[in-house]
Amino acid sequence: MKTESDAAREGTITGRVEKVASDEGIEAKILSERVAAGSVVIMHRGKVAIGIGQGLRTKVNVNIGTSPACCNPDEEVEKARIAERYGADTISDLSMAGDISATRKRISAATSLPLTTVPLYQTVAETGLDNLTCRDFIRTIRMQAKEGISSLVLHMVSRTILKHIQESPRVLGIVSKGGSMMAAHMILGKCENPYLECFEDILSITKKHDIVISLGNTMRSGCISDARDRLHAEEMRANITLADRAHEEGVQVIIEGVGGHVHAGRISRYIRDYKRKMPYPLFVAGPLPTDIAMGYDHIAGCVGASLASGAGADYLCYLTPAEHIGLPTRDEVKEGLIAFRIAAHIGDTIKYGSIKKDEAVARRRAELDWKGQADLALDPERICQENPQGTPCSMCGPFCAIRIMKEFCNTRTP
Amino acid sequence: MKTESDAAREGTITGRVEKVASDEGIEAKILSERVAAGSVVIMHRGKVAIGIGQGLRTKVNVNIGTSPACCNPDEEVEKARIAERYGADTISDLSMAGDISATRKRISAATSLPLTTVPLYQTVAETGLDNLTCRDFIRTIRMQAKEGISSLVLHMVSRTILKHIQESPRVLGIVSKGGSMMAAHMILGKCENPYLECFEDILSITKKHDIVISLGNTMRSGCISDARDRLHAEEMRANITLADRAHEEGVQVIIEGVGGHVHAGRISRYIRDYKRKMPYPLFVAGPLPTDIAMGYDHIAGCVGASLASGAGADYLCYLTPAEHIGLPTRDEVKEGLIAFRIAAHIGDTIKYGSIKKDEAVARRRAELDWKGQADLALDPERICQENPQGTPCSMCGPFCAIRIMKEFCNTRTP
Repeated sequence: MKTESDAAREGTITGRVEKVASDEGIEAKILSERVAAGSVVIMHRGKVAIGIGQGLRTKVNVNIGTSPACCNPDEEVEKARIAERYGADTISDLSMAGDISATRKRISAATSLPLTTVPLYQTVAETGLDNLTCRDFIRTIRMQAKEGISSLVLHMVSRTILKHIQESPRVLGIVSKGGSMMAAHMILGKCENPYLECFEDILSITKKHDIVISLGNTMRSGCISDARDRLHAEEMRANITLADRAHEEGVQVIIEGVGGHVHAGRISRYIRDYKRKMPYPLFVAGPLPTDIAMGYDHIAGCVGASLASGAGADYLCYLTPAEHIGLPTRDEVKEGLIAFRIAAHIGDTIKYGSIKKDEAVARRRAELDWKGQADLALDPERICQENPQGTPCSMCGPFCAIRIMKEFCNTRTP
Repeated sequence: MKTESDAAREGTITGRVEKVASDEGIEAKILSERVAAGSVVIMHRGKVAIGIGQGLRTKVNVNIGTSPACCNPDEEVEKARIAERYGADTISDLSMAGDISATRKRISAATSLPLTTVPLYQTVAETGLDNLTCRDFIRTIRMQAKEGISSLVLHMVSRTILKHIQESPRVLGIVSKGGSMMAAHMILGKCENPYLECFEDILSITKKHDIVISLGNTMRSGCISDARDRLHAEEMRANITLADRAHEEGVQVIIEGVGGHVHAGRISRYIRDYKRKMPYPLFVAGPLPTDIAMGYDHIAGCVGASLASGAGADYLCYLTPAEHIGLPTRDEVKEGLIAFRIAAHIGDTIKYGSIKKDEAVARRRAELDWKGQADLALDPERICQENPQGTPCSMCGPFCAIRIMKEFCNTRTP
């Protein structure tokens, strides 16, 4: 099978490119050129195709999946449905407990969205950290690829970087779960990162199924005082080199960076710096501009993600109110997703000046059209719950400024 | 009675200045000089004194109060308690229904925080828009001042500005409730703004009781496509002139500006521009960087308020999830307040680089000290609800990155 990248480089405009171009309101030819250049990836599953990257609407990913401390596949399936219903662009199944393949199958059936995995999770959960061999890593990737995932995350931390982390004055060294597990494997086995050693095999598997590779952000900071250090720089350089190799091979690739906890005053600069160095779509987890918002990290994350997407990040990984506390409930998945859809939209108003949706809401607000506003809301049900009769806003009642201005100021002259 | 401004200009360091200086960790003499210069105000009630302005922690105001469409004074009293409990710095009682003075008295007794009113609200609610005279406006101010309010909001829109609003291409003309009522009064009565005509009387009342004047932001935009226009510029100029006059008279004064709906890419610039033009503390409602977040305006508002405070806004007026929908419930007051405390903190990390609180959380997180983190949280109860046993985070369970790094990476060499 030809990947979207291969097809684009041959000048073929695929059905998926046409679909994404139409969804995004841009020319298919231009989009295809960007896919060829690697600045856009098309993540797909079945009939669904989502474009991520240069000039496109900022996308939002939702993480779901079982945990050994909280394993309820039914709940995770429900969360997948909620994610699709409230406008997620992609879903990552991060299951690490129960029958992981069976859960993924059920999630896959419950949603039409592109599905991402972190194959390391299943490898470690099923084999255990102590007994892993290089072959286990590749076997999981091959199996998940055959099952039809759209994208997979690889934590590429090298032995050199790992050595530096142990010498680092960071308060919180590695806070990436995949990154920490890979580090532990490398320390236990006194070996290089198997993904680095088998990178060409991974490329041939992902190429065969046109799976997008997402190069993980193992070195993201776990708190805002762990400012950008040489670990970030080394990971950035290493990931760009790997992305170049994948792109050369016709494998679609995304880089994760500037995630985790980042001082609010630096987020935009770091994003712009990253984007200047490489053409690939940038995927950002959060970032959180403060460490103090436990229980409300989706709100703090919305601030960081607005700044990140406004500065050029293409793809946001949501955070929920449960971040740092536990596995999110269904409601928390929804809350987190909506917060990050707001961030993506704010980012797009900065990046592209796109305020059509805002204008549509504003015009209905000016007309005191309550139902019309609710219809355009991210969560129409919430508006109906708060205001079941669809009557004017009870904050001001008869003293509504818009009503007063309509009554007195448009009809009489001062 | 001497106002804080008078005392500071005479070189007297008052007890309130000493208290605020100690709370903020700055020198009393420097603080007093800022009060003298008008760049800091001290809002006070009883033994409580809150400093707002140059070099001080960004403060958050919570609006509560009855509405004709939803009048339940018990609820408003409860909201005042919640506001104090979750860390509001000041409360505005915006009641417009029921026995307004009685409600204010109850709110006043339920909280020790400084209390702000919009006297126009009580004037209009009790007398009706059609029958108001200039004396009614002054009578309310005198009465509320005697009752011991800490601050009052004045909407100073002039006939000239009002004429321009009627010619303006704005989608949403005036969305300030107080501003729209004042405009309606001026149109009905074919008169100038009574607050402008009686400004000297108002100064003498507020000086007598050392009440902080807050000059309202009538011309704030109601949607982000209503970008900055000459109405904003005219109001800014007019409010600065009035503030200069108040300051000259020894009356403490705050200016409201850059509130409402403002494009995310412009918030910082507008704030810096305002602050360059005047020394007074800047009070911002929101701002909302998007119009689409109905039901989640506290989250979108947190983004705008983080940018605003980071660029120099001194004082934030919160928004709740009920903004644009109705009067907030108790829970919504809490949600809105916490979102804006996060914004104020993020702003302070940008303005002052203050990340002590963040570091404290990060160190406890690094130690896997769950109770310690919860104790430092904005809402410790929420953490306990989510994680009643105080056990480690259930998101990753045994695969917690911090635990793995502790176990494998700090004790063995790679």
